[in-house]
Amino acid sequence: MKLLLKHCDILMGQDFRRLENAYLGIDGDTIDYIGTERPTADYDQEKDMSGKMLLPGLINCHGHTPMVLLRGVGSDLPLQEWLFDKMIPVENRLTAEDIKAGNALALLEMIATGTTSYSDMYFETQTAVENAVEAGIKANLCRPVQAFAREEPYEQNFRARESLQLFKDCHGMENGRIRIDFAIHAEYTNVPHIVEAYSADCKALGGRMQVHISETFREHEECIARYGKTPARWFYDLGTFDSPTAAAHCVAVSEEDLRLLLEKDVSVIHNPSSNMKLGSGFAPIPKMLDMGINVALGTDGAASNNNLNLFEEMHLAAVLHNGFTHDPTLMRPAQVLAMATSHGAKLQGREDTGVLEAGKKADVIALDLRRPHLYPNLDALALTVYAAQGSDVVMTMVDGKILYENGEFLTLDADKILYEAKAAVKRLYGD
Amino acid sequence: MKLLLKHCDILMGQDFRRLENAYLGIDGDTIDYIGTERPTADYDQEKDMSGKMLLPGLINCHGHTPMVLLRGVGSDLPLQEWLFDKMIPVENRLTAEDIKAGNALALLEMIATGTTSYSDMYFETQTAVENAVEAGIKANLCRPVQAFAREEPYEQNFRARESLQLFKDCHGMENGRIRIDFAIHAEYTNVPHIVEAYSADCKALGGRMQVHISETFREHEECIARYGKTPARWFYDLGTFDSPTAAAHCVAVSEEDLRLLLEKDVSVIHNPSSNMKLGSGFAPIPKMLDMGINVALGTDGAASNNNLNLFEEMHLAAVLHNGFTHDPTLMRPAQVLAMATSHGAKLQGREDTGVLEAGKKADVIALDLRRPHLYPNLDALALTVYAAQGSDVVMTMVDGKILYENGEFLTLDADKILYEAKAAVKRLYGD
Repeated sequence: MKLLLKHCDILMGQDFRRLENAYLGIDGDTIDYIGTERPTADYDQEKDMSGKMLLPGLINCHGHTPMVLLRGVGSDLPLQEWLFDKMIPVENRLTAEDIKAGNALALLEMIATGTTSYSDMYFETQTAVENAVEAGIKANLCRPVQAFAREEPYEQNFRARESLQLFKDCHGMENGRIRIDFAIHAEYTNVPHIVEAYSADCKALGGRMQVHISETFREHEECIARYGKTPARWFYDLGTFDSPTAAAHCVAVSEEDLRLLLEKDVSVIHNPSSNMKLGSGFAPIPKMLDMGINVALGTDGAASNNNLNLFEEMHLAAVLHNGFTHDPTLMRPAQVLAMATSHGAKLQGREDTGVLEAGKKADVIALDLRRPHLYPNLDALALTVYAAQGSDVVMTMVDGKILYENGEFLTLDADKILYEAKAAVKRLYGD
Repeated sequence: MKLLLKHCDILMGQDFRRLENAYLGIDGDTIDYIGTERPTADYDQEKDMSGKMLLPGLINCHGHTPMVLLRGVGSDLPLQEWLFDKMIPVENRLTAEDIKAGNALALLEMIATGTTSYSDMYFETQTAVENAVEAGIKANLCRPVQAFAREEPYEQNFRARESLQLFKDCHGMENGRIRIDFAIHAEYTNVPHIVEAYSADCKALGGRMQVHISETFREHEECIARYGKTPARWFYDLGTFDSPTAAAHCVAVSEEDLRLLLEKDVSVIHNPSSNMKLGSGFAPIPKMLDMGINVALGTDGAASNNNLNLFEEMHLAAVLHNGFTHDPTLMRPAQVLAMATSHGAKLQGREDTGVLEAGKKADVIALDLRRPHLYPNLDALALTVYAAQGSDVVMTMVDGKILYENGEFLTLDADKILYEAKAAVKRLYGD
């Protein structure tokens, strides 16, 4: 099937050059034309996109999607109380059915706000695979390893076993739309020999790694007290970074940590809403970008955000660092949009997407510019990053297939998902 | 006309107590009942609000609405370049017709995102009066005074003349829905004798005052260099604070400034998006709240925000201070929602609104809870402040009259306003 989107603005290429009244042609799952002249080739179907602007689909590089079921639980508690007194007791009650229902609810929100690909770290991961297959979204899913006993043999760590089995069973499904990543939850929830052995397996199998690093100063300092080194150095020494790694947070990193991340081409995920809300602080993003570290964006879980809307994260990433350093020129809209698109694609190992160019996968979203807060469009990048809202997305397309359009989900049954989420909430909390 | 809203959640009273499956009765422009039992009185009309949550209408306490026409101009320039090289040349070209068109465009956005009352500082102010009369929104409008010549007699300052005439002509129109405030743009755009005389006129006439104070550290330090005192002390000494005053920004305030603001019951307006985006920094809001200073929220103009959406400001106010101080317990959702509602009402001199209670004006908004990102609703205040979006507003009511419902504007012609905004943009920037 060949589809031509016509009469729209397009933010084209790595530098988001704005084309007006332009054409974007799609052949199957791939963009085959972008330009202001009508293409000479024939298309099976044409779609008038007047008044809309096309951007690359957004990539949410860090989350724990089923935690939408814990949205609002323990708000405004200190982190340790929030985590151990509020999150974990509910999470211990979650069944695979609950987790599948929560993930599906999260997919509705992400797809409706322009996310075309996401990375996620949770358990009962096969449920997320099933949902992603159905939804048509791209996903880098993982089953994170945790280990608490120094004497536990690596071969008996059931989380590592599940992770390896998942990789074997599901990696590359749906023509690569579903990827299975390896994951080590964090330094403070693991022991060295298991991290070392699992990292070696990841490398041997050609996997990619997801980790949490230095989310809080407390985590960072406790690791130094325990091992005489920072979490980044700990992972580095255990071989984790010998596979392409995505490190969430990196709020409390040292100068040496930054050099290690750069040396190993580790991607960092900035999660500004979650880090700010939990009082963790925020990562030194402008410095990382200056050094050439690949920085992407994430929402983290909805229990600490409390939503999964990358437009909100773009806005916060764009204004936060300027405000703190008293420099309005620090974060540029083009940088922020790249963090939410091409940087995320690199992090996920999806170099065939993240940018609107002929030859790339047709992962495309459309914003409706006919809204009062999006007029006038004098600077399309400033408009996208500072003014636009997730709700301005009127089309979300993945691999050339439309998943969402004008408020309707075309691959998912939103009513069924809300019904099942309600049943899960009832099981979890009672009436 | 008596109207009963039924079967909805309601955030009632000063502490936003959540009622479920409740009733809100309206007699004319006033709330006459709130409760979970059906009222015994008769109503002319009943409206099923199942799946929705009612909040007090939001109050946007600082802005320059016609600057929506400059949305995106000079993004990411340093403040002085942005202001003097980009803003002022365009503003000098604005006609009354342009200003009226810009204000109307801003009203569409504000009403659609739940703002029921706003404060605004701009020139050609009669155009904003005309628009507010038509729109049905509440507005505290002003014509700010500026003066640059030390020898200018007060009586010849045309801005002060326009301001006084506007107060005489329009203050209290529409049963108090339109209020005219006095306004002094800022210390750095004025001279003392004019500020003193105008402040005395404001006091004599029982007016309220709007000012900018210490938006940037540079402004603050330059005032000290010029007068040997801070902007807050300068206004205090010139009698400005002898009328109820709303002070925008207050980013770079001293300890003594805070004591002066408290002593004179000056309200402070926190504009987090604008202050952060422009690299100005941010006001010490938690400290102000602790001291008992009345802190409200504002968007500032769209040229520095770049939208007029109070849900975004609530979100930023809720997470910003937590993140910077590493204390997740610092800003509570109830405080933030009070800043956007009852604190704003106090600032505007509208103590008959800002809270949902019998006897208060029926300034009410409804959020549609049947959206994936608003489920589950385990903590209604956290949901409102952290998860909800301006686009979740499905009804905006002022004085018992519905201005906006399910995407439709009932008092304004959105197509005409967009058409006129386009004509203004064409006049300003060419094709």
